[in-house]
Amino acid sequence: MKLLKERIRTEATVIGSQVLKVDHFLNHQVDVDFLHKIGAEFYERFKDEPITKILTVEASGIAVAVATAWFFHVPVVFAKKSDSRNLDQDTYTSEVFSFTRNNCYLMKVSWRYLDAQDHVLIIDDFLAKGRAVQGMIDIVHQAGASLAGVGIVIEKGFQEGGSQLREQGINISSLAIIESMDENHIEFRDQ
Amino acid sequence: MKLLKERIRTEATVIGSQVLKVDHFLNHQVDVDFLHKIGAEFYERFKDEPITKILTVEASGIAVAVATAWFFHVPVVFAKKSDSRNLDQDTYTSEVFSFTRNNCYLMKVSWRYLDAQDHVLIIDDFLAKGRAVQGMIDIVHQAGASLAGVGIVIEKGFQEGGSQLREQGINISSLAIIESMDENHIEFRDQ
Repeated sequence: MKLLKERIRTEATVIGSQVLKVDHFLNHQVDVDFLHKIGAEFYERFKDEPITKILTVEASGIAVAVATAWFFHVPVVFAKKSDSRNLDQDTYTSEVFSFTRNNCYLMKVSWRYLDAQDHVLIIDDFLAKGRAVQGMIDIVHQAGASLAGVGIVIEKGFQEGGSQLREQGINISSLAIIESMDENHIEFRDQ
Repeated sequence: MKLLKERIRTEATVIGSQVLKVDHFLNHQVDVDFLHKIGAEFYERFKDEPITKILTVEASGIAVAVATAWFFHVPVVFAKKSDSRNLDQDTYTSEVFSFTRNNCYLMKVSWRYLDAQDHVLIIDDFLAKGRAVQGMIDIVHQAGASLAGVGIVIEKGFQEGGSQLREQGINISSLAIIESMDENHIEFRDQ
């Protein structure tokens, strides 16, 4: 997605070789008009799939998932990361290690919101080592649902998440894939 | 908002006298088409204010805030609840006790995304004891920004959050206020 790559190139801050900050438009402050364009792009890429649910994980995936669901007119389900007394006891559960936060958490989705009739599109803002997406795929499998694919806004192509998912035969579509980056330059993969 | 009250009355599950479950359309699974109507309603109620930012807190406020920002064409800022290595060190910070999760957390917003030029609309899905909203108001004050008001989808009118905010002179607008509830009946406040 050309416009996204331009924004990353001109506006993102790179810290070291691993951290890409785009929190002024994607995952702390959200540019909602730009998000609308991202949702439209995911719709273009997955519109031929008979999608019934969009699955993401709290928190920063929610805005992107909602913008995408706008076009599909299907519900968003967002996996929860921690226990709440408002969450059902009957949940699909997957243990996920977060490198961003350096801890393990239980990703949970109520049995009521995914089942064998569902054809699921997974949406997330970032893909790096791929643990969150693997957790969501695990939950789709536990539900007996089918997976339409995975839509990612920004993939860090120099980390292993994307290649591992592609080796598993997952239909993964990233709007921008960063091949390498440092504080002076961001190199995108040709797509 | 009549349609919201109807959905609560016919679809919500009440557990004991305190917990109202609407997680099939609002805060675990999200009915995005219905969310669009909620966003339109908040726009109607606050459109005369020169709003520059919509502030919410992760996670379940995000979907409602994005739907509302759609109509205002202003950015959403979502306060973070936990440290991440991607978050700036320079943040407005407010300590909040969560009764839902029975713990304290630090609510944080980067200095970069709120300042004295901003006129802020706070949006959240639920209001009960009001601690999360008080934390967000604290952050608006720390930023030197002005507060347009607070938009809440469902207020538990039998808890003290709403009345405390109104006593402070806050312009708070709830789409449905529950006066009392049990497993057989939900009583709304006339608005």
